Amino acid sequence: MSDHDTGARADRLADVMRERELDCLLVTRIVNVRYLTGFTGTNGACIITPDERLFLTDFRYVEQAAEQVSGFERLAIGRDMAGDLGKRLKGRAGFEDAHVSVRQHLKLADKASDGVELVAAGDLVEDLRQVKDPGELRRISDATELATAALERVLEQGLAGRTERAVALALEQRMRESGAEDPSFPSIVAAGPHGALPHAEPRDVEIGAGELVVIDWGARLDGYCSDCTRTVASGEIDAEAREVYELVRRAQAAALAAVRAGAQCRAVDAEARQRIEEAGHGERFGHGLGHGVGMEVHEEPRLSQRAAEDEVLKAGNVVSVEPGVYLPGRLGVRIEDLVAVTDDGAEVFTSFPKELVTV
Amino acid sequence: MSDHDTGARADRLADVMRERELDCLLVTRIVNVRYLTGFTGTNGACIITPDERLFLTDFRYVEQAAEQVSGFERLAIGRDMAGDLGKRLKGRAGFEDAHVSVRQHLKLADKASDGVELVAAGDLVEDLRQVKDPGELRRISDATELATAALERVLEQGLAGRTERAVALALEQRMRESGAEDPSFPSIVAAGPHGALPHAEPRDVEIGAGELVVIDWGARLDGYCSDCTRTVASGEIDAEAREVYELVRRAQAAALAAVRAGAQCRAVDAEARQRIEEAGHGERFGHGLGHGVGMEVHEEPRLSQRAAEDEVLKAGNVVSVEPGVYLPGRLGVRIEDLVAVTDDGAEVFTSFPKELVTV
Repeated sequence: MSDHDTGARADRLADVMRERELDCLLVTRIVNVRYLTGFTGTNGACIITPDERLFLTDFRYVEQAAEQVSGFERLAIGRDMAGDLGKRLKGRAGFEDAHVSVRQHLKLADKASDGVELVAAGDLVEDLRQVKDPGELRRISDATELATAALERVLEQGLAGRTERAVALALEQRMRESGAEDPSFPSIVAAGPHGALPHAEPRDVEIGAGELVVIDWGARLDGYCSDCTRTVASGEIDAEAREVYELVRRAQAAALAAVRAGAQCRAVDAEARQRIEEAGHGERFGHGLGHGVGMEVHEEPRLSQRAAEDEVLKAGNVVSVEPGVYLPGRLGVRIEDLVAVTDDGAEVFTSFPKELVTV
Repeated sequence: MSDHDTGARADRLADVMRERELDCLLVTRIVNVRYLTGFTGTNGACIITPDERLFLTDFRYVEQAAEQVSGFERLAIGRDMAGDLGKRLKGRAGFEDAHVSVRQHLKLADKASDGVELVAAGDLVEDLRQVKDPGELRRISDATELATAALERVLEQGLAGRTERAVALALEQRMRESGAEDPSFPSIVAAGPHGALPHAEPRDVEIGAGELVVIDWGARLDGYCSDCTRTVASGEIDAEAREVYELVRRAQAAALAAVRAGAQCRAVDAEARQRIEEAGHGERFGHGLGHGVGMEVHEEPRLSQRAAEDEVLKAGNVVSVEPGVYLPGRLGVRIEDLVAVTDDGAEVFTSFPKELVTV
């Protein structure tokens, strides 16, 4: 991560702090620390003030921080960070109230100087993270390409006769061998009726011939996640399965076409949902259309019928678009692309075909 | 997990609650929820009172909970759990203050009835988890066996000429293929001078011949972790390396011999540390001797020179015993066994030899 990126992020954060009249902000959520500083270790924190950028970690990570973190003053502190951090707070001091525990908060308050006021700051860094910069878009694109190539290789060996678990393991191994830090979430490989569970775990069960197989997988590469789903046929499928597949495909295309900066999150969800409802499967699409993806695989914004009226997409958001139809005891279909929102549409990261692939 | 186990755990917790004069206890930390109920999903909570055992999860996990959770009344609630949970609290209501966030706490307090007093309960469930029951000991033993077998297979292909990362990947893949849910932590494979970093990450660098290679790895199986380290030679090593190896081996044996119920945690650490100090390497053993292992790979108790005087081992504790000597720029040696504490000693789970293995 270049100094330029991280410096710009802390500057944007300082602007938001000014609006919120915060004299300092304590950032302890580790993914947010990484976003601001580039630090990839498991224990670190930042304190941002209008004039200062402090990065604090324990002795284990001092060398690593020296390599990774620039544009911040670096300090080593004890492993029990909350006390040490508390002493360094000033004035109206924001903290990440969704992540600081009650016990940590008590320690911070105990060690803070007189006159320091701890202020629940909300999700300031997460809000910044919703809009990706070009370097982040490139990383997400790279992660998506890596994951797609892995699936292509794994499908070369067919699906019927392999267990769901073996396919998932092969996919994950291939991603790791290609340089992924990890799968970005536990892969789903769910054949036939098992595909009707949206969060199915791969089983030690052989995939039959002529089944629809839902494959939902992603890679984490250089700190960024991909997320994609394809539903693939393990041989010739029957008319009902084909019909559901084509319905989901049309619904997904309609939602994709609605993605652009300024579009209401719930309106994009409705594009897919309405088509599925019209086909009589409204009750069989029991989750939201999509979610933000970045350093975490589930971020804001959410494409959901429950999104508020004023929740709209912004250029630079990266979201999944993933309608599904799940027929209990019979089959499931989900088709998911990852896209970057632009002023006039969506840039689709995923290259794997959406016409039904039979292996 | 049998009903018997989980029922007994909730009973023990109710006993502790009585001592602490708590009318109810809210358990939200997911690993603790799994410990008490057997539930393996990612969103669930318990409320325990003297008369009631409630388990609460969202709609996604209702079916899974019906299969996994018995001995508790099961309820489905909204995804925003804190509000729904708050309404169900009674009297002096304990919560896990090290894990409940400031924001969740505010919601709980907001929704709780008049007269409910939220009480920081500390680590009640973690304290119970320190002493393992026979079913847990068996699971940890199984995880250790699985991980050991994986290393044996991976070493059959030698070390010299393979990259650290390739060895780590092969080890992790082998563990997954044998049924592990996951590695219990990111594997360390660190050759030659790189072995001098206690938390080294595997590199895309070929292991040379005649190097000491630190391999620290573990499997998670059925919710329980293994943790083991061996230092293996990739061919004939020099006299210094051999001397350091034998020193660490003696230190590890001395510490193992001191493990038993009633032993002071810091005295066990001292057994190893003293031998390393006497050999002039005291400064080169920069971490504690060991830590508890169970559902998490780092738990209490800690075997450390910083442990308090009254911290003693109990029968049923499972701890790692892992002294190391790290010579910057030259080499590292760490030897780690996982052991169960018994009334008259230690039962060692790890079967891999501790005489220097050359591959």
